[in-house]
Amino acid sequence: MPSWLKVAVVEPTGVTGSEIVRILDERNFPVSELVLLGRKRSVGERVEFRGADIPVAALDEGSFSGVAIAFFATDRATSGKFSPMAVSAGAVVIDLSSCFALDEQVPLVVPEINAEKIRTHRGIIASPRGATIELVLPLAPIHRSARIRRIIVSTYQAVSDSGEPAMDELTTQIRDLFNFRDVTLAVYPHQIAFNALPHISSFTDNAYTEEEMAIIAETRKIFEDRHMRICATSVRVPVFYSHAESVNIETARKITASQVRELLAQTPGVRVEDDPSNNLYPTPIHATGNDECFVGRIREDLSSDNGIAMWIVSDNIRKGSALNAIQIAEHMLNSQP
Amino acid sequence: MPSWLKVAVVEPTGVTGSEIVRILDERNFPVSELVLLGRKRSVGERVEFRGADIPVAALDEGSFSGVAIAFFATDRATSGKFSPMAVSAGAVVIDLSSCFALDEQVPLVVPEINAEKIRTHRGIIASPRGATIELVLPLAPIHRSARIRRIIVSTYQAVSDSGEPAMDELTTQIRDLFNFRDVTLAVYPHQIAFNALPHISSFTDNAYTEEEMAIIAETRKIFEDRHMRICATSVRVPVFYSHAESVNIETARKITASQVRELLAQTPGVRVEDDPSNNLYPTPIHATGNDECFVGRIREDLSSDNGIAMWIVSDNIRKGSALNAIQIAEHMLNSQP
Repeated sequence: MPSWLKVAVVEPTGVTGSEIVRILDERNFPVSELVLLGRKRSVGERVEFRGADIPVAALDEGSFSGVAIAFFATDRATSGKFSPMAVSAGAVVIDLSSCFALDEQVPLVVPEINAEKIRTHRGIIASPRGATIELVLPLAPIHRSARIRRIIVSTYQAVSDSGEPAMDELTTQIRDLFNFRDVTLAVYPHQIAFNALPHISSFTDNAYTEEEMAIIAETRKIFEDRHMRICATSVRVPVFYSHAESVNIETARKITASQVRELLAQTPGVRVEDDPSNNLYPTPIHATGNDECFVGRIREDLSSDNGIAMWIVSDNIRKGSALNAIQIAEHMLNSQP
Repeated sequence: MPSWLKVAVVEPTGVTGSEIVRILDERNFPVSELVLLGRKRSVGERVEFRGADIPVAALDEGSFSGVAIAFFATDRATSGKFSPMAVSAGAVVIDLSSCFALDEQVPLVVPEINAEKIRTHRGIIASPRGATIELVLPLAPIHRSARIRRIIVSTYQAVSDSGEPAMDELTTQIRDLFNFRDVTLAVYPHQIAFNALPHISSFTDNAYTEEEMAIIAETRKIFEDRHMRICATSVRVPVFYSHAESVNIETARKITASQVRELLAQTPGVRVEDDPSNNLYPTPIHATGNDECFVGRIREDLSSDNGIAMWIVSDNIRKGSALNAIQIAEHMLNSQP
């Protein structure tokens, strides 16, 4: 690959796509030309990048000519259709749609954990969903040190996950409630304002949601442990940015809360915020806009001999999607011969 | 006890106290005279009951003369000081402050589970905290049927728990944010609007909060099992009314999700709402104002051989406090000779 690259972002006007454009600039990613590609709705819109207003072009078969890296910040169907075209045109696809996350041919990468998998790609590299990234990032060093046998996670997920319309829905519902008007529903099946919905993505036949099953499958794939016991409950809460997770783990070897704190203090990408006596613990509002995954409330699980409970929060749009994808691209460049 | 009673409510202008006054009317509780007692701040305020505006009198040693039942919807210190005076004056105290919840001399009662304990009182009967009530109510029949060995619960708790000032704080913070003003903090140590705080009540030496330790201790007391393994993570979310709980249990004997659904369908005080294909599951908005404890997302825990995961929601001010206290009083009257 040349040292300056033609880079494409698919759906650059969405919540994640626009964050990718911002972070490419912020981290001085070596972009020689930025190609912005969208479906009908966004074609012709302009997105600012390094002082230039770049128009969004229509996504089609010819879009990827000369593109070295294409970020797909789009839905599964769009990624499923256009990613192979991008690969055929010679681009490396970094897919954020979860379309390829569980494909055995596709590496699923959180660079702090398994950057070495990047080299095995055949054109597509998948970035996991936000709820998975913030779960595995702090658990990885614990797994290496004490072998995690079981994970139980309950999430508190932000609406920005569902894009701009969901953020508008939360805002509008609150405004309507404050003005004694009826609430209207569009993105979510129930009111999200002042509510909590145990329902993210679609339900599957086993009464879990796709999101819950994907957290389980992605975590197993990243930890390369098909039999790791995991249960997830995914809940949408009226928070704009940053997912929180209440996590209980059981390990094969005993590890204490203070050992976990020490391990995590040395883990790249993780920041320990754990001083309850000073009301210090992670919260979505404080995590938002930061690159790290914040961990606090680290304590021994009172219901288990070898258990740890903790509270994890990370910006779902940064490390939870856009940043992780760009870090994958950075690792790819740095490992070029 | 006579069939019509002089009843006292301590702190009748608070969120819980005013709900007690409303429910006494709603359920035609046999009140011959309602005595409203408050600390300085609320003395002289008037509360409507059955068409009369009753003034709040100052709480003092002589307040309980002739009172048969006194509901203490107040803080621990006030209950600790005045409950014994009420008992000395001949009243039965139903305490909602959690001051006496773990006192071995005091029955801790959820009438659907252990109404028989009411008879053992020595003047004070404790009503558990809301997060405990909605946890034990649906778990009790499962415990009887399959013996629960372990409970892991993560809560999504409403601000009304912290009283009117907390509800005002959530409202004001949102209004300020919508008007680009700085947010001010008073009740909670961090912004509660669009946030999630893993911090309810105070932290104890073992890195758990008092709320979490109380959920554990109260559940063990109600189930009369000092060794039941329980871990709790209590989280405040920007919801006005109704607590939600993500619960994972392990049982000694295998029980399937459909057996749990059948059991709970027959459990008084519990309503199963569990039809994901029609987006039917409990939410705080829909539970609010209802008496039942709603249970959904019932499924086998994928991380355990004998495990069940579920999602429980109940109105923290009704069954979670005021209603449970009044049900205790009703049981007491009905079991009079």
